[in-house]
Amino acid sequence: MLEARLGSTTLLKKIVDALKEILSQSTLDCSASGIQLQAMDNSHVSLVAMSLRRECFERYRCDRNVALGLDLKSLMKVLKCASGDDAVTISAADKADKLQLRFESAGNERTADYELRLLNLEQDHLAIPETDYACVVHMPSTEFARICRDLATFSESVVIACSKDGIKFSASGELGSANITLSETSKGDVSLQVEEPVTLCFAVRYLNSFTRATSLADKVKIGLAADVPLLVEYPIEDHGYIRYYLAPKVDDPD
Amino acid sequence: MLEARLGSTTLLKKIVDALKEILSQSTLDCSASGIQLQAMDNSHVSLVAMSLRRECFERYRCDRNVALGLDLKSLMKVLKCASGDDAVTISAADKADKLQLRFESAGNERTADYELRLLNLEQDHLAIPETDYACVVHMPSTEFARICRDLATFSESVVIACSKDGIKFSASGELGSANITLSETSKGDVSLQVEEPVTLCFAVRYLNSFTRATSLADKVKIGLAADVPLLVEYPIEDHGYIRYYLAPKVDDPD
Amino acid sequence: MLEARLGSTTLLKKIVDALKEILSQSTLDCSASGIQLQAMDNSHVSLVAMSLRRECFERYRCDRNVALGLDLKSLMKVLKCASGDDAVTISAADKADKLQLRFESAGNERTADYELRLLNLEQDHLAIPETDYACVVHMPSTEFARICRDLATFSESVVIACSKDGIKFSASGELGSANITLSETSKGDVSLQVEEPVTLCFAVRYLNSFTRATSLADKVKIGLAADVPLLVEYPIEDHGYIRYYLAPKVDDPD
Repeated sequence: MLEARLGSTTLLKKIVDALKEILSQSTLDCSASGIQLQAMDNSHVSLVAMSLRRECFERYRCDRNVALGLDLKSLMKVLKCASGDDAVTISAADKADKLQLRFESAGNERTADYELRLLNLEQDHLAIPETDYACVVHMPSTEFARICRDLATFSESVVIACSKDGIKFSASGELGSANITLSETSKGDVSLQVEEPVTLCFAVRYLNSFTRATSLADKVKIGLAADVPLLVEYPIEDHGYIRYYLAPKVDDPD
Repeated sequence: MLEARLGSTTLLKKIVDALKEILSQSTLDCSASGIQLQAMDNSHVSLVAMSLRRECFERYRCDRNVALGLDLKSLMKVLKCASGDDAVTISAADKADKLQLRFESAGNERTADYELRLLNLEQDHLAIPETDYACVVHMPSTEFARICRDLATFSESVVIACSKDGIKFSASGELGSANITLSETSKGDVSLQVEEPVTLCFAVRYLNSFTRATSLADKVKIGLAADVPLLVEYPIEDHGYIRYYLAPKVDDPD
Repeated sequence: MLEARLGSTTLLKKIVDALKEILSQSTLDCSASGIQLQAMDNSHVSLVAMSLRRECFERYRCDRNVALGLDLKSLMKVLKCASGDDAVTISAADKADKLQLRFESAGNERTADYELRLLNLEQDHLAIPETDYACVVHMPSTEFARICRDLATFSESVVIACSKDGIKFSASGELGSANITLSETSKGDVSLQVEEPVTLCFAVRYLNSFTRATSLADKVKIGLAADVPLLVEYPIEDHGYIRYYLAPKVDDPD
């Protein structure tokens, strides 16, 4: 059986909110080491991988591997019934057809128990090869979200060009064109590790859907290399992450 | 004639906002002792009774009983033209076909006079028998509102079970099930007076419409007894109330 | 060529937001003395005149007169890509077909360059005769906005009556009627200069569209005289303004 307790529901809400932006249903793989999820987005273009190591939890017990097939919109509906500062315990028996969620208020004067039907989902296990990225950029996650939102006004495609001088995001369309350049700052807001310069083009609407995870982390890590998928990674506290992968567009953005 | 003055429009806005949630048109019965309203909701299922004793008002005069037939959405439109801290005076001549509303700003540099057409409405006078409730619960009004909203996610029906141990709200449907339990706390947030345990089932959408009155009072009083309508009462300051009555569902919630 | 720099984008956003409420496309006339705009609203009923003298800008250079034909919704989309505290530099070459906008963050670690296509628009140059208004009223711009919004609930027309005693706004319709009176106050919030009393009737939806400029200025100036258009003027800091003109309705408001 699985039993996992978080001191605050807020973190779980943010994670599920980010995942449900690109997945309607998915399977959580629970094992002794923690909880994992890996899936293609609904349109089978980008890939998301989530990991919550057992250290993320206040209490964690998983005797036997369990796969929990979940409808993420339904899970979000249940999570919305919790206050952010309620503690949450999720549990499931072996071969359960229900997920149990218990929300407890700080003073314990309120206990709310929810049961959510589990789904039998087929799972593709996807191998994500380790990649050495030619450019690795750390930047404020809100800045990345703002750039993706702004450039989507101009075009469906965004060109990301990274060199030692900075990272430049560009888009052009009927309205006009946009070029946003970030340089490494002494404040350390933006940091660049560049082995060789890279210029790649991506579909901006997928980038935008990744930024739904913005509230999870102050910083986002971006990994770029020629001919391999872009990595966009949001750390989850100290023991977890959500990683998004998106293949570059091969045709010219114009 | 009627003349009644409140030091702040906010209270009147909250009352009308609550009433218009379940009534489109209704009659205010004004007499020397204050203002009363009693009506079935638009779908003729629940009943609402409102009372504002003359002590609620800064100034109150009503020489002769007046029945003011009002369209509540129209009244709300007029009230929205007042700042919350404007004083409001409502007045009507005997046999008037118009209600006068005057809003005055604190410094008196702004006076706004509104006239609202009155309606000729038929009135059913409904006898509400005094009831000894087997269970009387006082709880924070925001907590009651939250429970009704959350359970509406799961089902059209909610089962309320009250005993000396606590009050439990339950709902179950396709999504899953929910059980929320409140216990009497030392803080005194929740208090229970239980003569005998009661378990009853109600249509949650009516409960939800009652919670539109939440902003009127910190605490809500719930009265339950077998085979009689549920009472949900919001006090209005020290001299008034809105009471809602809803008959239990006789069929099983599932 | 034109080059004009503002220390903060917020002011420019407010101006364009106000203009786009009544104009879809328009021409900015740039000269050595500053930037001007003059146009009929989309429905050719009211007139708007905007002036930003060169003193409004942190840096201003315009060697040769330039007319910049702009789609205001598109311009607003670009401005939304700036933070309020970004500095903005707009520039255009002589006979340019593009407007350049550069947004720079405070620490300069972020530079965003946008290009917006310019349009070839026909321009009517409209002569606005200087008028001596029989009544000139200064009042808080938020109060004027609130009155226009409130009266639009009652009627399409609003009667403005101004005398030494105060300024009264009236409307009546199916719902009922409204009369809002403001008097000159010792606080100086409202000031009246009245040569002779005036009573005029206006279409309230145009007044409402003018109030989109409310955030530009704490005070609005209203000028009234028999048989000439109403003036509604919002100052822009110390060296500019947006002025709206609206002809009175000749038919009776009822």
